[in-house]
Amino acid sequence: MVLVATRNPLNIGAAARAMANFGFSRLRVVNPYDVAFREARSAVGAAPLLASAEEFASVSDAVADCRLVVGTTSVGHRELQHPIRRSEFGARAIVRALRADAVALLFGSEKFGLSNDDMSHCHWLMRIPTVSQDLSMNLGQAVALCLYEMARDSKAAAARPGRIRQAGAAENEQITTMLLDVLLRSGYVNPRTAGSTEEKVRRLVRRLEIAARDAPVLMGMLRQIRWKLEKP
Amino acid sequence: MVLVATRNPLNIGAAARAMANFGFSRLRVVNPYDVAFREARSAVGAAPLLASAEEFASVSDAVADCRLVVGTTSVGHRELQHPIRRSEFGARAIVRALRADAVALLFGSEKFGLSNDDMSHCHWLMRIPTVSQDLSMNLGQAVALCLYEMARDSKAAAARPGRIRQAGAAENEQITTMLLDVLLRSGYVNPRTAGSTEEKVRRLVRRLEIAARDAPVLMGMLRQIRWKLEKP
Repeated sequence: MVLVATRNPLNIGAAARAMANFGFSRLRVVNPYDVAFREARSAVGAAPLLASAEEFASVSDAVADCRLVVGTTSVGHRELQHPIRRSEFGARAIVRALRADAVALLFGSEKFGLSNDDMSHCHWLMRIPTVSQDLSMNLGQAVALCLYEMARDSKAAAARPGRIRQAGAAENEQITTMLLDVLLRSGYVNPRTAGSTEEKVRRLVRRLEIAARDAPVLMGMLRQIRWKLEKP
Repeated sequence: MVLVATRNPLNIGAAARAMANFGFSRLRVVNPYDVAFREARSAVGAAPLLASAEEFASVSDAVADCRLVVGTTSVGHRELQHPIRRSEFGARAIVRALRADAVALLFGSEKFGLSNDDMSHCHWLMRIPTVSQDLSMNLGQAVALCLYEMARDSKAAAARPGRIRQAGAAENEQITTMLLDVLLRSGYVNPRTAGSTEEKVRRLVRRLEIAARDAPVLMGMLRQIRWKLEKP
């Protein structure tokens, strides 16, 4: 990852932390504000990555050993001379290229983004699909999004959630019986209409979709309530 | 979006800016550090959103009108009592729920995340799949990722890139002819072996996959070079 002319040490630190979060390790900086680069070295969790960051005087030098060079852009530049790919698609293209070669992903300064000269070193540009053309993203957040998108597992998006094991029919029936018993003892159920109530309670218990691990807890509660109701 | 006990005004500002970036508008804060909340109001591009942010004294109050409550967690809590969904999947579940009802997405403090008490208000938890269990994400970046994932267009990921219109066969042949002419005049091509060279140059020009819009530019260059070569 290549940060060009970054001004704010917090952003260099945030970028490095995001790299650590998503398993990227090679950080290069081009013409950072000296102070910014020094101060960033204390960023939480990113110290080793910042210590091994390489500094370059030009974009050309920073990307010299890379086979693919991708620039990032906020929206709004209408007269860009480059193909632009949305991050959802562009990140996949980068991941494919990374299998074979080094890839440079460039981020411009907070205020101006990448210059036309910076962009002329890029094969194409990637943009994050924000809703407004006028409000660019915070640099640290933009870096995090691009790296997240590259690390993202599309299979996880399509996955079914971890299923919660439900209580079995026997446990549900046991809970139903105990609940009816408590309702009778408490006077909630009229013994003469208990038959139709029983069915209602049974359906209610099924609708609760009680988790297997909650069943013994509920039974314990009902047992205790019944015990209390039995006492004179 | 609900920020619980956030300390750093930069993070409240960054969260608000990310909301503006991805088209979310309702921000709630629970027990923010007073100063943090006031200072955040000056965050770039997020002023209207912060001005309309609502402050609550408890998580319970902040989520009272929401039908689904989702907490976010960094990795590392091993004894969580909640189902955990990865952001790729969880964000889709939130988007589905949002079609019908209000949803609360909770973020805890920078240092401690959500407390067990905060989490007890949640139906399930969402986590961002970072590589290391030990290094949590920066709060502003975590917010941006969750909102990005909700705004993300999975169709865009599968899309083909915008195709670049290629020069037609006639233009390629015109360029080939002009290039050969220049090569002959410059002495690069030996007139006696020009036949085989012509085929090589023709194949070379096709391999360049010249874009339609670059064809006239290249022809202009070749025309100028030929003109210069013709001069005594």
